[in-house]
Amino acid sequence: MPILTGVIAVCAAMHGGSSWADPPVPDFSDNSNPLGPPRELIRLVKEAVERMAYLKFPANLVEEALSEYEGVEVTAFNGATEALTVLLASLRPRRVLIEWPNYTDYGRIAELIGAEYVYVDNFNSAGPGDVVIISNPNNPTGRLRKREEVLDLAGQLERRGAVLVVDESFIDFTSEPSAAPDVLVVKSYGKFLAAPGLRLGGILGRVRGALKAPWRVNSIADYAVFHLGASAMRRHREATVKYVAEESPRVQRELGKCASVVPSPVHFFIVKGPMPQGVKVRPLTTHGIEGAYRVSIKTRELNDVLIKAVCREVS
Amino acid sequence: MPILTGVIAVCAAMHGGSSWADPPVPDFSDNSNPLGPPRELIRLVKEAVERMAYLKFPANLVEEALSEYEGVEVTAFNGATEALTVLLASLRPRRVLIEWPNYTDYGRIAELIGAEYVYVDNFNSAGPGDVVIISNPNNPTGRLRKREEVLDLAGQLERRGAVLVVDESFIDFTSEPSAAPDVLVVKSYGKFLAAPGLRLGGILGRVRGALKAPWRVNSIADYAVFHLGASAMRRHREATVKYVAEESPRVQRELGKCASVVPSPVHFFIVKGPMPQGVKVRPLTTHGIEGAYRVSIKTRELNDVLIKAVCREVS
Repeated sequence: MPILTGVIAVCAAMHGGSSWADPPVPDFSDNSNPLGPPRELIRLVKEAVERMAYLKFPANLVEEALSEYEGVEVTAFNGATEALTVLLASLRPRRVLIEWPNYTDYGRIAELIGAEYVYVDNFNSAGPGDVVIISNPNNPTGRLRKREEVLDLAGQLERRGAVLVVDESFIDFTSEPSAAPDVLVVKSYGKFLAAPGLRLGGILGRVRGALKAPWRVNSIADYAVFHLGASAMRRHREATVKYVAEESPRVQRELGKCASVVPSPVHFFIVKGPMPQGVKVRPLTTHGIEGAYRVSIKTRELNDVLIKAVCREVS
Repeated sequence: MPILTGVIAVCAAMHGGSSWADPPVPDFSDNSNPLGPPRELIRLVKEAVERMAYLKFPANLVEEALSEYEGVEVTAFNGATEALTVLLASLRPRRVLIEWPNYTDYGRIAELIGAEYVYVDNFNSAGPGDVVIISNPNNPTGRLRKREEVLDLAGQLERRGAVLVVDESFIDFTSEPSAAPDVLVVKSYGKFLAAPGLRLGGILGRVRGALKAPWRVNSIADYAVFHLGASAMRRHREATVKYVAEESPRVQRELGKCASVVPSPVHFFIVKGPMPQGVKVRPLTTHGIEGAYRVSIKTRELNDVLIKAVCREVS
């Protein structure tokens, strides 16, 4: 049963995070990794530039590192957006069903390829030729489905002739395993690596050759993340999961004393109440939600700034 | 009249140029700018990395510089490939007619979006719902159409219900003006800037909002080319056009003494004969052409190495 139509997506340009050109401000709108990038990545990006890798074509070697990290074949793309765009263009869905609320760019991609799209809160209307998109964990709610739940949903949809696509851009912030290769999975690595400007995403599992443009990832990201390697990424995931599991409940608990927090197992969650002043948070108006916003935790010190800002607002 | 079917595109992964991971060798297969990048670009890429622009989202400011440079609105993409992919996905052609010979990746993109494609040497078969792709100048022949010719072709196709898309990735190596905004134009800037690893392309002219993903160009390219600016790009074009107009005829003349050269107004051209040894050239087997290859000029010193290699081969 569609509950919302595509109208919402006209505001898709609104998003969390800051660009390099924005003035600095305590920013809890960006749900990048609160631990920041792996330290080694900073050195390797510098090295890529010193060696002028960008004057050469990408070698697509980043796919070796990502495939080893994931334990399944990964095709790298210029962010999750390009990954999902070519995947949907290739699937040519009759209709796209997007679980609501969700990342607002899915609707734009459906529109790009000329597919009707609807936001839904259940999948009862899914039928032959439909593609269903969920994000796991969900952005913006943080809701996490177990791998078995995702596979079960994919099976139900398959029996209706529909295809499930899962965006796992935030799964590395949890210890939940990927649903790939049993389900079509797209993913951003920019959030986990806290380097969204590198533009690195992927499709997990085997894909048709037609989806693979000769070059998809810029040479600097290709060089740096290839050399970073799977083990450094695994170590960064362990540290991230540990930090999120400790600090996110603390911040949710503290904020819960003066606002209504929607519990989340990840580093971002929804807070109901007036927008706090002096800090940047992610409004949810583009999701059609008023009177609530998404925050994403940072360092402990910064999180205390957020707690003060939110609690001052309501005291 | 289709003369070749899509079968050729299975080898689309073969291309000119080297990746950052390839061993160095005198490389005439890459048709990047023989003058190299604007010197300022090297400094700005370094600056982007020192300022850690890649830890922030792209600001999409590169579009300001590119629009000023082109004199028409430019939407920036992760290379010409992403630009053409979203453009074709959006046009949803019944069929794609590709002028032969041409850049081999067009066929893959048609296949990706599920459109039939054929290589043609004329456009008599174009009909309603077809998209016709040409490159101007042509890659690999170098053939250049005047702007009026392109507009005339677009008009003829429009009367048949077909749409012309022109890839102008090499027009900056000539003094010919762009066919945009009167015709749909996609373009790579990586060849002209001699920085194919930065991944920077564009669509010239106004495009539907659905084509604009929130981030398409990585933050390093966004920062560096925005700060490089339109005037530096114009100066680089002038220097490039001057060098190509002097040096390409010289190399073609010298090679013409011991091989058969297909005349070209740009920096690359087709040479008929056996592949020279000790230098890297671009075979044309992926275009279905045997016994010929494409070379692209470099510095005068390197060009003399090429001349010797080719002439040794046939002497």
